[in-house]
Amino acid sequence: MRRLSVKLADRSYSIVIGERALDRLPDELSSLAPTRLLIVSDQNVAPRYAAALARKLAALAPVTTKVLHAGESSKTLATVEQVLDALFECSADRKSMVVALGGGVIGDVAGFAASIFMRGIRFVQVPTTLLAQVDSSVGGKTGVNHAAGKNLIGSFHQPSLVVADTATLTSLPTRELSAGLAEVIKHGLLADEHYFELVESRMSDLLACDAGLLEDIVARSCEIKADIVARDERESGERALLNLGHTFGHAIEALAGFGTWLHGEAVGCGLCLAADLSRRLDLLGGADVDRIEHAVARARLPTRIGGLGRSDALRAMAGDKKAEAGEVRFILLERIGRAVQRRVPADALDATLRAGGYT
Amino acid sequence: MRRLSVKLADRSYSIVIGERALDRLPDELSSLAPTRLLIVSDQNVAPRYAAALARKLAALAPVTTKVLHAGESSKTLATVEQVLDALFECSADRKSMVVALGGGVIGDVAGFAASIFMRGIRFVQVPTTLLAQVDSSVGGKTGVNHAAGKNLIGSFHQPSLVVADTATLTSLPTRELSAGLAEVIKHGLLADEHYFELVESRMSDLLACDAGLLEDIVARSCEIKADIVARDERESGERALLNLGHTFGHAIEALAGFGTWLHGEAVGCGLCLAADLSRRLDLLGGADVDRIEHAVARARLPTRIGGLGRSDALRAMAGDKKAEAGEVRFILLERIGRAVQRRVPADALDATLRAGGYT
Repeated sequence: MRRLSVKLADRSYSIVIGERALDRLPDELSSLAPTRLLIVSDQNVAPRYAAALARKLAALAPVTTKVLHAGESSKTLATVEQVLDALFECSADRKSMVVALGGGVIGDVAGFAASIFMRGIRFVQVPTTLLAQVDSSVGGKTGVNHAAGKNLIGSFHQPSLVVADTATLTSLPTRELSAGLAEVIKHGLLADEHYFELVESRMSDLLACDAGLLEDIVARSCEIKADIVARDERESGERALLNLGHTFGHAIEALAGFGTWLHGEAVGCGLCLAADLSRRLDLLGGADVDRIEHAVARARLPTRIGGLGRSDALRAMAGDKKAEAGEVRFILLERIGRAVQRRVPADALDATLRAGGYT
Repeated sequence: MRRLSVKLADRSYSIVIGERALDRLPDELSSLAPTRLLIVSDQNVAPRYAAALARKLAALAPVTTKVLHAGESSKTLATVEQVLDALFECSADRKSMVVALGGGVIGDVAGFAASIFMRGIRFVQVPTTLLAQVDSSVGGKTGVNHAAGKNLIGSFHQPSLVVADTATLTSLPTRELSAGLAEVIKHGLLADEHYFELVESRMSDLLACDAGLLEDIVARSCEIKADIVARDERESGERALLNLGHTFGHAIEALAGFGTWLHGEAVGCGLCLAADLSRRLDLLGGADVDRIEHAVARARLPTRIGGLGRSDALRAMAGDKKAEAGEVRFILLERIGRAVQRRVPADALDATLRAGGYT
C-alpha cells in the first residue's frame, strides 16, 4: 500500500494506492465525518462493487447509491442534474460527501455535481479504471462535455481523498486497460524518460495486469501529476503540459462522436500526432517519433485514426479550452521526458494532419 | 465616485460606485484585456442600457448580448445553459469575460455560467437594482434555485470588477427599491448601529432616491459586506451572519412559490421574524424588536406574510444550506448592530412562526 499527497494548502489530500485499498476507505473517511454519503457509479461498475462498498460505509453515515449509464454519453449537464436530484432526495447537506466509484466519466460527473451542490461539498475519488487511477482522479478537474467540445463545462474542485484499488484493474476489459496506458505513456513522455523506458520495456506485463507493476505505475503516474498540480492547480502555466496529445485527442473524440473512441485511445493517437508535429518543428528526432509510435502500438492503442476531415479538426481545435482568440497552443516534445508549450505554424499542423490520415 | 476593494489575495477586486459609474466601465475593463465580451441582461434592463453599453465596450473586444427573461423564474440550470450556449456561439475562450447587467438574478445566473464555462472565466458585475448594488453583486456567491430550495446549486466565483451606477436606481420601480432596502437594514442590524440609525432616520429620502444619500448607502453596505467576505470568503464562520433574516426569507420564497415575493420582501419579513425569535431567546429587548419592525415597515416592506404553513416552513428551513444533519442554525441579534449564530429550541421557533401568522 502506498500513500502520496497532493500539496495544495488547505485543499491538500491523500492518494492511497494498492491491492485492496478499498478496504481502507471506511477508516480513511471516518475522520472526514460525513453526515451522508452518496455513492455515484455506473451500470458496469456498480454491480461489482457498489453494494459491498455501501455496506462498509454504512457505519459512518446513511449511504445512498446512484447508478448512471456507463460511458462518455453520460458526461452531460442532464446527468449532473440527476446526481444533484439524488443529493436532494437523500437530504444531503453541506457536510455530506459524494463517493465517485468508477472510471473517468463517473469522477468527472460526480465531482462536478459535488462542486456545485450548495456551492460545493466534499467528494472522494474511488477510480476503478487504469485511466482514472493514473490520471483523471487526481488534480481536481471535473466537468462535462458540450456540443461544442470536450470538458468545456466544469470546475476545479479537488477531492478530499483518492483511493485507487489496483485489484479493480484485473477485471477491466483489455481495451480499457490500453486506454489507461495512453496516459501512462504521456506521463513518461512529458516528465520522466526513465519512467517511459520502464513502461515501454514492460508493456506486456502491464497488459497482463502484473499486480506489483500496476501499483508501481499508478503510484509513479500519480506522483508526476500531483507534483505538477501542486505547482499550478488552475493551469495558468505548467499544468498545461499534462495536455500532451489532448488537443488532437479531444478533436478526434468530438469529430468521431463522443464515445466512438475511448478517451485514452484518442490520446494514444494524439501522442503520435504531437510527436510528428514536434519533429516537423525540429524539436524531436525521427527515431524518437518512431519509438513513441511503437510504444503506443505496443499498448494496443491506435497510432492513426483516419477518415476525419482536416478542416473539421482545425475548427474543433480552435474551440479547445487551450485556444485564445482562435489561436491554439500545442504541447510538444523537446525530447522524450520533456514537454513544452508552443504556438504552431499552420503549414506544419496541416502537414501533421495529412500525414496522420486526415482528408 | 467611490472606489472600494474586496481583499481576497489573488482574487481581490474593485467596486466602483457613483452616478454615471457606467461611463468608467470601458477604462476599468481595458486592463483586464478580454478577448470577447458577453453582456447578459434581462428584458427589463436590456432595452434601457444594453445597446449603449455594447457600443462603449466595442473598442475593447467583440461584444455579444444575451437577453434573459426577467425575474426569479430565470434562476434555473436551464437558463445557465442558455448563457453557456451563447458563450460557445460567440466563440468565447478562457480570456473572454461575461458582463452581468441587471439585478441579483442576472448576477447570480451570469456569474454561475462564467464560473463553469471552461472551468471558470472572469466576469464583471454591473448591478442595476439597489438590492444587487448593496448586496448580491459583492462577495462571489453565484447560483440558481432547485425545486428543493433557493440558491441550492451554485459556486463561489468572485467577479473581477463591480461597477454600481447609482443613476440606474432612479428608474427602478418603488417595489424594487424597497426590496433593496431590506438588505441595507440588514447590514445595519448585523454590523453597525449608527448605520441602522442613519437608514431609519432617512428612509423617506432613500425612497425618494436622493442621489448623494444613495451613493453613501451603497458604499457603506458594500464596505460592510466586503469586510466580512474578506475575512471569510467561503462562509465557514462569520460570513453566515450575512444570512440574517434569510433562513426565514428563503422559506417564504419557496413556500409562496419563487417570484411571488421579491427576495428583498421576503428578507424584510425574515428580519422581523429573526428579531422576534431573538427576543424569545432573551437576546433582544421588545423595544428593539418594535424598532426593527418599524424600520422594515417604513421601507414599505411586509413585516408579516401570513397564510403559509408552519410545518412546511420548518421542512423548508431544514433543507436550507445552513442546515446540518437536519438541524438549522439561525442568525439572531444580540443587539442592534451585532448578530450571532445560534441553534434554536423547537418551541421558540414554533412560537415565532405562530406569532408571524403561520398556520
